[in-house]
Amino acid sequence: MFGTPIILAPIAGPGTPELTAAVCDAGGFGFLASPYSAPEKIHADVARIRSLTKKPFGINLFVQPELPPADDAMLERAHERLRPYLRELGIDTSEIARPTNVYAAQIEAVIEEKPAVFSFTFGIPSVDILARFRKAGIATMGTATTVEEARALEEAGVDCICAQGAEAGGHRGTFIGDAREGAVGTMSLVPLVVDVVKIPVIAAGGIADARSVRAVLALGAVAASIGTAFLRAHEAGTSAPYRERLANASSSDTVLTKAFSGRYARGIANRFTREMEHESNIAPTPYQNALTTELRKVSAQQGNREFLSLWAGQSFPMAREASAAEIIAQLRA
Amino acid sequence: MFGTPIILAPIAGPGTPELTAAVCDAGGFGFLASPYSAPEKIHADVARIRSLTKKPFGINLFVQPELPPADDAMLERAHERLRPYLRELGIDTSEIARPTNVYAAQIEAVIEEKPAVFSFTFGIPSVDILARFRKAGIATMGTATTVEEARALEEAGVDCICAQGAEAGGHRGTFIGDAREGAVGTMSLVPLVVDVVKIPVIAAGGIADARSVRAVLALGAVAASIGTAFLRAHEAGTSAPYRERLANASSSDTVLTKAFSGRYARGIANRFTREMEHESNIAPTPYQNALTTELRKVSAQQGNREFLSLWAGQSFPMAREASAAEIIAQLRA
Repeated sequence: MFGTPIILAPIAGPGTPELTAAVCDAGGFGFLASPYSAPEKIHADVARIRSLTKKPFGINLFVQPELPPADDAMLERAHERLRPYLRELGIDTSEIARPTNVYAAQIEAVIEEKPAVFSFTFGIPSVDILARFRKAGIATMGTATTVEEARALEEAGVDCICAQGAEAGGHRGTFIGDAREGAVGTMSLVPLVVDVVKIPVIAAGGIADARSVRAVLALGAVAASIGTAFLRAHEAGTSAPYRERLANASSSDTVLTKAFSGRYARGIANRFTREMEHESNIAPTPYQNALTTELRKVSAQQGNREFLSLWAGQSFPMAREASAAEIIAQLRA
Repeated sequence: MFGTPIILAPIAGPGTPELTAAVCDAGGFGFLASPYSAPEKIHADVARIRSLTKKPFGINLFVQPELPPADDAMLERAHERLRPYLRELGIDTSEIARPTNVYAAQIEAVIEEKPAVFSFTFGIPSVDILARFRKAGIATMGTATTVEEARALEEAGVDCICAQGAEAGGHRGTFIGDAREGAVGTMSLVPLVVDVVKIPVIAAGGIADARSVRAVLALGAVAASIGTAFLRAHEAGTSAPYRERLANASSSDTVLTKAFSGRYARGIANRFTREMEHESNIAPTPYQNALTTELRKVSAQQGNREFLSLWAGQSFPMAREASAAEIIAQLRA
């Protein structure tokens, strides 16, 4: 289906059209994550990829048909909790940032652009939307963190499944049940999913070198979805303080935190994740994401790693600074 | 070192001398877990193994040089919390059960019996004890859940390391830092440990079929330590209600709970783990283990799965009822 066992996972933030294209040109299959992109941005990013490579690629979105109801008091409390950090970084705290929902327009943009594959996380698009992708000749890949989610995706008619183990960096794709309790590791999840679905399974989580690529193929996956190993790629948009922290892997500890986006995601701990660890005033996604957008942006600009989302999988000490082509050569060694 | 890639992990409770011997005779390498055994029991169990097989085998202990200081008020609160459950099962609640420490005598018994391998969890035996094992010609294997623990074990001079991923059933062997936060999955842990130590690494966690055995060998492990796949073996001492729950794998959810022993261990959720989930009145190990011993025993006798420690790894839906020899044949297929 992908014609290669090496897939660049959709990595929002560090991902760039340049990285996606470089992976495709080096014989991998690249995804671009566009979870918060307006349709114009999706069109521009796809145009950029196509200017760099003739190879097929994929686009990834969050399934977010509508914003959850906004509770103003709760948003104010979540904003209030962030105020000292915003002030510390010199950010105007007077306005509460609110998200807009562009999901329907994103879907139109992706169908119009006809990438080879459309992948998604946090749920299942509607029957109508999946039918439109099928009609457009775009393959679909859903993300499952449990056997139950894999079954639901297959029943909905997706073409393949990304089985995301607990080791994976960034957001846990969980859409049934709790994303943290009982998070299943790649070694257990992949064969369990392979045994219950008939469609191809792509493994994600903890795959960062040639050994782990071989391991997930032995588990029955058709390919390995790899994000963390590309975080220090020359073509990635990873910020300087984020790169520095990845390079300094004296401790391999990562944490699952809701503090940045309102949803559990795995990254390297910093002051923000530690101080927010037991915080209850965190808005649900995508509100919390909007509330922390400026904080993360300015933190990166100031070279300050303490308020950045340092998404990383548990194998992050293996991430090397190199070109995407060199990283792919190592993954195949 | 083991002469086989298939190792029966030490599984306290369901483990029996019969299971250990059957695994050895079928071409695997069997451990017997003796964490709470008095020296007389260790001698008797080893005699039983030797009456059943001529093959080499291993014995596993907890590293517990001394009991932590007992805080009577805390023990009373922990006992008080258990009282309704004890009463519900008709257990006399008047006495607070207290553990005795037999570690020094256990060590003597194991050295005297000279198994091929001595493995241990929850720390590192003293320099003197490790030297005595070396002198006795008994190989040593320590358990690591992080790269840092693996380094510490190698520095102490152990002969090999069991890298226990987060998928593993039963107690997490963690002895530096928190056993739950940042628990590293097998796919990430094994190659990271292989890269930092020179001694052989045995993988544990999520290995329950031939695919996962091949996967951990691809990761660089010399062998796979397998517990959960043997829980339903004919030769195992797994209780009837425990076997029934394993057979009914409609949900693959496992939890990490401290409720039974005071230390995090992975098992299938039941009423006890759910109701104790946020409980703070849990005594430290081994006190909590002593407080719940009768509860677990009587629950098993009554065919009641709700107060049993249903230790199981995340691959438990793969456990099959069969002889140890048949299970080993499947693991090698």
